[in-house]
This record gives sequence, C-alpha cells and structure tokens, in this order.
Amino acid sequence: MEKIKVGVLGASGYTGADLIRLALRHPTIELTVLTANAHAGKPVKDVFRHFSHVDLPDLISIDDADWAAVDAVFCGLPHGTTQAITKQIFETHPKVKIIDMSADFRLRDPAAYKEWYGLDHIAAEIQPEAAYGLTELYRDEIEAARLIACPGCYPTAVLLSLVPLAIKDLIDATDLVIDAKSGVSGAGRGLKENTLFCEAGEGISPYAVGKHRHMAEIEQEIGKAANLEGLRVNFTPHLIPMSRGELTTSYVRMKNGASASDLKDALIDAYSGEPFVTILDGETLPQTQMVRGSNYVAMNVIPDRIPGRAIVISTLDNLVKGSAGQALQNFNLAYGMDETLGLEQLPLFP
Amino acid sequence: MEKIKVGVLGASGYTGADLIRLALRHPTIELTVLTANAHAGKPVKDVFRHFSHVDLPDLISIDDADWAAVDAVFCGLPHGTTQAITKQIFETHPKVKIIDMSADFRLRDPAAYKEWYGLDHIAAEIQPEAAYGLTELYRDEIEAARLIACPGCYPTAVLLSLVPLAIKDLIDATDLVIDAKSGVSGAGRGLKENTLFCEAGEGISPYAVGKHRHMAEIEQEIGKAANLEGLRVNFTPHLIPMSRGELTTSYVRMKNGASASDLKDALIDAYSGEPFVTILDGETLPQTQMVRGSNYVAMNVIPDRIPGRAIVISTLDNLVKGSAGQALQNFNLAYGMDETLGLEQLPLFP
Amino acid sequence: MEKIKVGVLGASGYTGADLIRLALRHPTIELTVLTANAHAGKPVKDVFRHFSHVDLPDLISIDDADWAAVDAVFCGLPHGTTQAITKQIFETHPKVKIIDMSADFRLRDPAAYKEWYGLDHIAAEIQPEAAYGLTELYRDEIEAARLIACPGCYPTAVLLSLVPLAIKDLIDATDLVIDAKSGVSGAGRGLKENTLFCEAGEGISPYAVGKHRHMAEIEQEIGKAANLEGLRVNFTPHLIPMSRGELTTSYVRMKNGASASDLKDALIDAYSGEPFVTILDGETLPQTQMVRGSNYVAMNVIPDRIPGRAIVISTLDNLVKGSAGQALQNFNLAYGMDETLGLEQLPLFP
Amino acid sequence: MEKIKVGVLGASGYTGADLIRLALRHPTIELTVLTANAHAGKPVKDVFRHFSHVDLPDLISIDDADWAAVDAVFCGLPHGTTQAITKQIFETHPKVKIIDMSADFRLRDPAAYKEWYGLDHIAAEIQPEAAYGLTELYRDEIEAARLIACPGCYPTAVLLSLVPLAIKDLIDATDLVIDAKSGVSGAGRGLKENTLFCEAGEGISPYAVGKHRHMAEIEQEIGKAANLEGLRVNFTPHLIPMSRGELTTSYVRMKNGASASDLKDALIDAYSGEPFVTILDGETLPQTQMVRGSNYVAMNVIPDRIPGRAIVISTLDNLVKGSAGQALQNFNLAYGMDETLGLEQLPLFP
Repeated sequence: MEKIKVGVLGASGYTGADLIRLALRHPTIELTVLTANAHAGKPVKDVFRHFSHVDLPDLISIDDADWAAVDAVFCGLPHGTTQAITKQIFETHPKVKIIDMSADFRLRDPAAYKEWYGLDHIAAEIQPEAAYGLTELYRDEIEAARLIACPGCYPTAVLLSLVPLAIKDLIDATDLVIDAKSGVSGAGRGLKENTLFCEAGEGISPYAVGKHRHMAEIEQEIGKAANLEGLRVNFTPHLIPMSRGELTTSYVRMKNGASASDLKDALIDAYSGEPFVTILDGETLPQTQMVRGSNYVAMNVIPDRIPGRAIVISTLDNLVKGSAGQALQNFNLAYGMDETLGLEQLPLFP
Repeated sequence: MEKIKVGVLGASGYTGADLIRLALRHPTIELTVLTANAHAGKPVKDVFRHFSHVDLPDLISIDDADWAAVDAVFCGLPHGTTQAITKQIFETHPKVKIIDMSADFRLRDPAAYKEWYGLDHIAAEIQPEAAYGLTELYRDEIEAARLIACPGCYPTAVLLSLVPLAIKDLIDATDLVIDAKSGVSGAGRGLKENTLFCEAGEGISPYAVGKHRHMAEIEQEIGKAANLEGLRVNFTPHLIPMSRGELTTSYVRMKNGASASDLKDALIDAYSGEPFVTILDGETLPQTQMVRGSNYVAMNVIPDRIPGRAIVISTLDNLVKGSAGQALQNFNLAYGMDETLGLEQLPLFP
Repeated sequence: MEKIKVGVLGASGYTGADLIRLALRHPTIELTVLTANAHAGKPVKDVFRHFSHVDLPDLISIDDADWAAVDAVFCGLPHGTTQAITKQIFETHPKVKIIDMSADFRLRDPAAYKEWYGLDHIAAEIQPEAAYGLTELYRDEIEAARLIACPGCYPTAVLLSLVPLAIKDLIDATDLVIDAKSGVSGAGRGLKENTLFCEAGEGISPYAVGKHRHMAEIEQEIGKAANLEGLRVNFTPHLIPMSRGELTTSYVRMKNGASASDLKDALIDAYSGEPFVTILDGETLPQTQMVRGSNYVAMNVIPDRIPGRAIVISTLDNLVKGSAGQALQNFNLAYGMDETLGLEQLPLFP
Repeated sequence: MEKIKVGVLGASGYTGADLIRLALRHPTIELTVLTANAHAGKPVKDVFRHFSHVDLPDLISIDDADWAAVDAVFCGLPHGTTQAITKQIFETHPKVKIIDMSADFRLRDPAAYKEWYGLDHIAAEIQPEAAYGLTELYRDEIEAARLIACPGCYPTAVLLSLVPLAIKDLIDATDLVIDAKSGVSGAGRGLKENTLFCEAGEGISPYAVGKHRHMAEIEQEIGKAANLEGLRVNFTPHLIPMSRGELTTSYVRMKNGASASDLKDALIDAYSGEPFVTILDGETLPQTQMVRGSNYVAMNVIPDRIPGRAIVISTLDNLVKGSAGQALQNFNLAYGMDETLGLEQLPLFP
C-alpha cells in the first residue's frame, strides 16, 4: 500500500513528539515533514532523546515546508499560532487533510474564541469547515472534513463520560461540578516556573480555577447535548506530580428518576463496540495507571452518598487519547482505515 | 522547668514518628516511653533511619510500659486497637492526659462508630469524656479534657474551612461536594499493594468513594454547625503520588445572598489571630507545597463560574496539622503552654 | 499462520505482566495459560487494572495448568521456585520451549548458585541445557536451546556494555567499579517496607552493597570474556524514585593503550546492525528516559578526567530489555522469527 | 539579646529561600534586607508561596540595599555575579561579615576559577581573605574570616567523608572514583528544560560527566589533604527525580594496609562530638531520606568485594548542610554562638 505522507507542525512539543512516536509505528504513514522553528536544522533526537534509536527527517522551519509534498498535516502548535498556517494550507492545498491538535478551531463561535483566548480569530471563515474531533461522538463529521479540530485533553475525558448522559436527559447539566486532575505534561514543554520538577513535585496545586479555557469546549458540547444556551459548568483543574494522565471526577445531579445504575447503562449503551472506551466493571474505580501511554479511556459511575446524586469518573492519557492518539484515530477515520491502526499499544504499567 | 514525661503508643507508624520528630525539639517534653509491639526491643533508629542522629529510648511493647511513670500519652495506633489501652490508662491513671490520634474517640455516637468502623465500641462509657481535638474550634473542651480525640487529617482540612461558613448559615450544608486529595502517607506504613511506589507513583486513584470513614466526622461536625440531623455530604478522596500533603476542594452552594467574598470574610473573621491558619490573599490558590512539614493550614475562597456557588480550598500536611502537629498543639493547650511550642517549623519547600 | 500457544508462570508479578502486555500485541502468540497461585480463579484485570481493556484467560494455579496444551512457557516466578516446575516441564514435555526470566538457570556452576542464592539447586542436571539468554551475545546457543535463562536486568545493562570491551582486552576486568541505579519495579510487586511509596519516594538508597546476586552473573560473564577465573568486580546498586529504568555507570581502567574512543569503536563494531542496541552520538549521555517502556538499550563511552580511565554508561528498561522484552526477543529467535516482533514500541516519553 | 541584622542576596532562589526559612526561626537573626532584582518590589510570598504564613520585608534590588544597616550578608547569587557586590561590601563595610553560598570564592587559585568557570575573577585580591567554609574542617579560619566561601553541595558530602581518610593516608587519592547523585533543586530555580517535571521525572540522567565544576573544589581539598599537586579525581554526577538530597558513593583504594574498618574508625575519630555528622552503625547504608530538610550529614564505610577497596557513602540535604544550613552554621561560628542555633530541625520523613 502506498504510504500517506504526513507533516507534523510543532514537532518539538510533547504533543508533537507523541504523534511522532505513534506515527513511526503506523503501517501507512510516512513522516516527511517535521517543523520546529526554534530548532530548525537539528536532528529530532537532539530535541527528544528518546528518538535516538530511529531515523527521522531533520526539523525544519514552517517556512521551509513544502505542503504540496504531503497528504496530511498534524498541527501540534500552541493556540493562536495555528490559524494563519492552517488557513494557508487549507486554501492553497485542498487535498491536504489537517488534523489540528491545538485549540484554534474547537469553538464554533468565533466570539467565544475571542472571549476565552483573548485573540481575534483570524481564520473564522474556515471555522465552519472544522469537525470537532471527538471521535466516538462525531464520526460522520470527521470522515467528511478536511479540517479536524481535536478536542482538548480535559474535554475529551469529560465529554465522553457526560455527553451521553446529557443527551438522554439523565443529568442536570446546569448543576455540574467537574473536579479535574492532570499530570504536568498537559502544561506543555515551555519553560514555566510552576512546571519545574521542584515546584510541581511532591505537591498538588489547583490552577486556573473558574477560568480554564477547556471550560468553553465543555460548555459548548454539554450545552449542545442538553439543548441549553449559555450553559455554565464548574470545572476546576489541579496539577498532579506525574507526567501523564488525567482524571475527571464529575459530580452530577440526576434527573427523571435516574439512578447511578441508569447512568452507567447509558454509557455502556453509548460505547458498545468502541475499541478505546472501557466502562469498568462493578465499582472498579478509574485510575490514570490504567491508561498510561495508551489510547484507552476508562470510566465508571459510582452512587453518591447524597440521594439523587452520582459521581462519574473518567480517565485517559492526556497526550494520547487526550491529544496525539485521538488525532491519529481521527486520521485513520478520515482515510477510511481501521481506527485502531497505530494505536494498539496497551497501557504501560507500572 | 520540669519536663513533662511523654509516652507514644504506636511509635513505628508515620504518625508516631512525626510526633517524635516534633516532640524531640519541644522544650518541655521528655520522651520516656515509646511502644511498638512488633519492634519491641529495637532502637528507634532501626525502624526509622532518620532518627539515626538522636538518642531515644528503645521501643517496648505496650505491656511493658509503666503508665505511672508518664504524664501524657500520645496514641498513634490504628483505630480499633486504642480503646482498650486508652480505657485502661484513663481509668487507672487519672493524672495522665491522653491525646489520641486514632479514630476511636472522634464520633460522639457509638452507633456511628459501629456503622463506620464495623466494630462495637468497647470503651463507649468514656467517649463522653473525649474532647474533639480540632484546636481552633474546640479550645475550651480541649483545655478541660483528659482525653482528646484529634480529628482525622481530611476532617481537619474540611472542617476548618467549612464550619465557620455553616455556623453563619452562609452555605447550604445539604449540598456539599468535597473532592479531596491526599499524599500516600495518609494510608500509613502498613504493607499494602496500592501504596507501593510502583502502584501509587505516576498516577492518581480515587478510593473509598462514597465510603470513606472520615465522612462520619465531617457529617457530625458540619451537621452540628448547621444544626442539621442526619446530614449527608459528598466526600471523594483521591490518592496522589506525593508523600505528604492534603488538599480539599469543596464546592458549596451559598445561602442568604452570600458571595464568595462574604465567605472569605467569615473565614478571616473566624481565624483572626490564629497562629496556624492562613487565609490567602486575593485569589492565591492553596497548594500542598505551601504547608509541607509544617503545622499551617492555608485556605481561600474562589468564586465559581456558576452563579450562587463558590469553591473553598484548604490544604495542610496530613501528618502535622492533620495529625501529630495538631496533637501537639492540643497538648500545649492542655498544659497551659503557648500553643506554638515545638511547632514553629516553617514549611519545607522545595 | 498458526499461533504459538504460550503460558506465563507468575502472571501476577511485574515481569509477568509486562510479558503479557507485549505478548498480547505479538502477531503469532496466543496466550492460553496464565498462572498465579495466590490469585487463581481471578480475572487478570482484577490483579492488574491496566488490562481492563482486553480479554485474557483467567488466572489459574500452576497445578491446574495443562502443559501439553502449550508450545512455550515464560517463567516469571521468583528464584528458587522455578526449578521444580521447569524440570518437570522440561522432562515431560520435550516440545515445550521454556524461557525463564528468573535467576534459577543463569549460573553455570551450581555451586555458585548455592553460594549466591543460599539454596541447593534441585535441577542441576538440566543446567547444562540452559542457554544464557543475553540475546546479542549468545544467539547460537539461544536458537538451539529448549531452556533459555534470561539474564538479570542489571547484568543485561552491564554485560552488553562491557563484554565486547573485555573480549578485545581493552579494559582491565580486575579493576571494574560498576555503580548501578534502578527504578523500584526491579524489586518486584511483593510487599516490602522499603518499596512503599513513602519510603522509596523523594530519596535515593544504596542497597545490597557488596552482596547483590546479580554480581554472580556479571563476574561469570566478564570473567568468561576476559578469560579470568574467580574474577571479582565492584557492583553497587542504588534504588531510585522511579518505577522503571536502570542505568549503570561503569568505571574502567583501559589496557593496551586504548582510549575512550577505542572503547566506543569496539561497541559500535559489536552492535552494528543490532535492532535494539543504540550507541549514542558524540558525548550524548544515556538516561533512562531514552528507553522507558521499550526494548532498546542505549550506551556510550565518556573519557574520564583521570588519564587511562573511561566511563561506560548503559541504560535500559528493567522490565523490557532487562526482562520481559529480552525474553520475547529470545522467543522470537528460538522460533526463527524476526527478533523485533512484538517489540517495536518506541520509548514512552515523557 | 540584640539581634544581628542580616541581608540575603538572591532571595528568590532555592538557596536563598532555605536560608530565609532557617533564619526566620533563628533566635538572634533579624532579616532586614532581601534582594531579588527580577522581583524587586514584590512581597516574598509572591515568589515563594510557602512564606505566606510569615512577615518578611519586601524584596528589593541590590542597588537599593543599604549595607550600612546590616551586620551580615548571605549571598545566594549564581557564580560570577557575586564578586563585584562582595568586593564592594567587603571594602566599604568592614564590619559586615559575608557568608557566600556561591562558588565565587571557593577556589584559592584564581587561575583555577578561570579554568573551571570560564570567567576572569574580578575580585581576586580579596580571595586570600576568604575562608573555605567547610565547618567541621576549617573552624579556625571561619571564626577569623570576614568572608566565608561555603563549599558546594557535592564537595561538602565528598570532602567530609574523604578528607580525614586522605589526611591519614589511608586511601590512594590518585585513584578516586566518586559517583554522585543529586535531587533537582541542586540545579536551581532557573528555567531549564532538563529540570522540568516531565524531563527530570521518572528517570535518571548523568550530567556534566568529567566536567562538573565541583570537581575543582574536590581536587583542591583532597589534594591539600593528601599533599598532592595537580590531583585529578573522577567525579560523575547524576540527576535523580527527587527535590532535595544528595548521595555520594566513593570508591577508594586503600593504602598502608588499611581496612574498611580502619577507614570507619578514622571517620568516627574525626567527627567525635560533632553535632551534625553521623557515622552510621554497622553496615547501615546512608540514604537521603535520613537527612531531608536537616543539617545532618550521614556516612558509612562498606567493605568492597574487591580486596583492597572500600566504598565510602555520604549523604546530606543539598540545600541545608550542602548550602544554607552550613552557611548558617558558619554564621553561628563566626559570631561566637552555639553552632546548632536555628539548625535543630530533625529530618522530615516521609
């Protein structure tokens, strides 16, 4: 089979690196363009030592990339930097599929983008072309799209566990408390004091309380599922001393007489046959150790001690199912291949 | 000044060890009896290597302890094992003050003890003598008591941050969601698979969801503050890959038109002049890194994005303010000394 | 292609689990027998939650295993427990290949086994049948053997980096100082106080100094390479607060006028074309982060500041190349397959 | 007693912060000047959240400090930045004692400074005034000096454990292999990719092999003790995933018929009565967990399996005995106070 030529924008970040890790073992991908402006000209292994064992094209700057020579592009750039290049590729290379792992095309409403990201959206006209890349819930849109906006890591964990409940009107979407915990890789590889080993280690820190940008996606999608305008949810993230992994503990008030067991049944029903979604048995509690390094998401529903309430817990690896893995899953879908290609790795434990 | 002779029951656990660490530098304490049945006859430094630098009496078994020779006893035994010895000392040595760090005398209602701990309380007749040792809220009782039942680590963090709000009727006590996170030392030094380095490391695990025994204390004390019988709260703990520290994120619905700012004012008001309670400035977020190794508790109130809700975050070191430190604070109080004696250590960071 | 039916002895340990993780994605393996006496009757996912996503046969006791129904057996049992069952399978099922990950058949001299392991070897008569499973150095023996004794994790890292130098007489084998560092998984999943999170975390501990059993293998193999009887080396292991990974820093005195560069050339020469051995460029220093979760070993030679000395550093994942991965590599070799089958995973970083 | 007014240069680094932590509980210190140019004007608690509980003067820039108003200055600046300010204070404020925690005055030979640090020493004329602040070995010089150059963290661990052996000619100083391991705080609080949580976590990395600047001090002092010019030692540091702590494993060849036991006796002899040096019993192995957060150093000598060799292991907390604690110990000595003042804290474990 002829290989699909793939470029990766932002190959020196954690998301880009995890995409490369997976793509290197994908049977139909040929990595041909890897960009990282700050490291242009260097071998990838000088930037990520764990690639010392493999051959890869050297890093180049975005300006030196030849988009005519690739079939698909994965964007692992920070938000705000993706729009111009995405728009350019989208408009000048209609055959190239773009799988964007940044936040730039996730919000359907450009006003919301400006509100949350503090920037005017400079490619708002192609926003309508973007499919929201939450694979299990948007397969039709993803298959048809040229631009796939992969969800944030937190939204993936939250939405996969709550959207089916909101759609069936089993939970009160206006009374959602979502306490989230993430490993440090979620903050990226940029140099920040709070992600130094000595600052993030041996401690837990809430951050961006009441302000985290992933809330916009969560409100957008839960609002859509529950058919509510202007929905507001509580979303409170905490930084945990681990590299990978994310766990969301959602406290829900049930509606229409539903029980925790009904919620669980709804999830089982929604994800029957899904290769990457595991609804855990009994009261087995999700833990990030169950998914590390893999594309799996694991979830469960636990009865609350307060009558009428339940606890929905969801976990994934923020760099895989929460980013590069889901992007690859969408790529597989977009090219009509088995969704699991290149994603078969089991979790690494311990 | 004559020293107060102190015994420590359960000197081979983390709580006992932290009590020893602090007591060794306390100006009026002389450690004379250290028990650890499984290690009787050994030097303490064979059991805790960080005591290699100091002189301590050897470990003995409980049966070999001479209670007539001590003035005060700290109990660091697991729950269920304390009642018989506590009762014996209480009844036969009326001059000995007992500061219990176990769970055995925290619940005023012996039926609740049986419900939560699965055991009949065998010293229920002395339960009424026990003061609940949440120092800042129960000073009068603690000063007067011969038996002080120090709160659990989680309840200390939760109650200090919520009781003043419940007393002033600023929050709806029937709608409390408390998401808690703890370092691994909270699980003790016993050999359990889930606290092995490889199991607890690089991951986060919820545990005892809907069932954690500390809920009993929280419901007892919040119920008392809010004047509510049979209160039920949500309390969901998570195990975090760090040794020390605890952080509780409480999601509260406000009452009587209160704002997050009103809640914060109530906490400032409640703890003005307290040596160990820090209400953080502005929207500074508590993190366990702020309190590691110290007797401080830090808290703040943050507005929620959902109108009418607020987020109350509290943090402490589970082995110090959550256990041995608070026990020592109570000891100081019980003996009419400055509460801060032996507890002046600042947090260790990084 | 017909699958090879595989049994795993000791499926509830870390080594067994990692073998299962890899075997599940191996194209020609069918896992049919998984034993774990203490957990017989349980689903594997009750013992290792990261297998919640896949189907596996339930755990059984060794006595219930039908060895006639398998083609190959991997043994992940602790040393001393493997000999009887290995001997039994070896003698009664001549078609079954046994890949032993324990220490029981690594030492050619049964007297050495008794000296180091404190036990009489009860299957000494089949010891001569065992190939020492250091793949890159013993391919012929491994291909021919029915019993493959995979090396210890430390010996794998040490021997791969030193044996080629000893063979070429470039280093003085009588003056070897090997300072080794290992993650905690090397100590296994058994309950031991020193591998609790709170004991092993935030600290480094040397252990078994001058006594570690892996020294026996190192002396056996370096002695053989250097043609020296009764060789003694310094081998000093340290426990590091990480789950996986091992790094050995070997301090060598060079012979015959060799330079660090000559040593490196000898390694490059020895491992040219090897799929899993990476000699790093320039003075790039090996770190465990380069190999986590993969079957790669990375090494380099750095000049020492002391003339005539050099530093040889080697790193691998103790559970993969140091155990289950190398075992699988030997399995592939023994069955005439591509050695890399099932071992293609790249390192997981971060 | 009148307080000694103290200034801290570089109060926003880990070393400066640990000095502040200790000084705040020192009975005779009043912290009056805290400089941090990049944070001038800020409260200290905005820069180090663990100081949220205490009152401190705001941070100021060096230029705004009034040196006439202080009695002593601790310098926690990076090397190369200290010389000008030190020289200025030294020359214009003869009553001010300067305790320098940087590397700038540790090397007696300015040429060595240039060789190792790559900079001309711009205050070479006051170098002869500097006492090398290894307290236990240089008390007379420290008491008499106005400028105390505290040793590096590694040299403190290495020299305390080896100098007494070199002085007594028990070891061959020309054949020293020193394998060192440090927590990440040793690299400081500056933003560097290799000290990010995701890079330094779950892994071990050798660094600066054959080039670490602390080698200069080690060679200077061992050379002096052994009376050897131009001594060269092997010193190989490794970065460990922990915040604090350092452990050095020194491989020595014994001389003059000495045994490991003789070496240990020499250490016991050298440090009899020392408040902060612990020679461990029997074959108890030093581990960083024994000293975390304290000013203690623990060491032991273990026989090597190779005849004629021994292993000398030493451990300390790099920020305390390795830096701020030893600086405070020197301050106490310089002012004729009990050396242990402010340094009584026991190790924090777990």
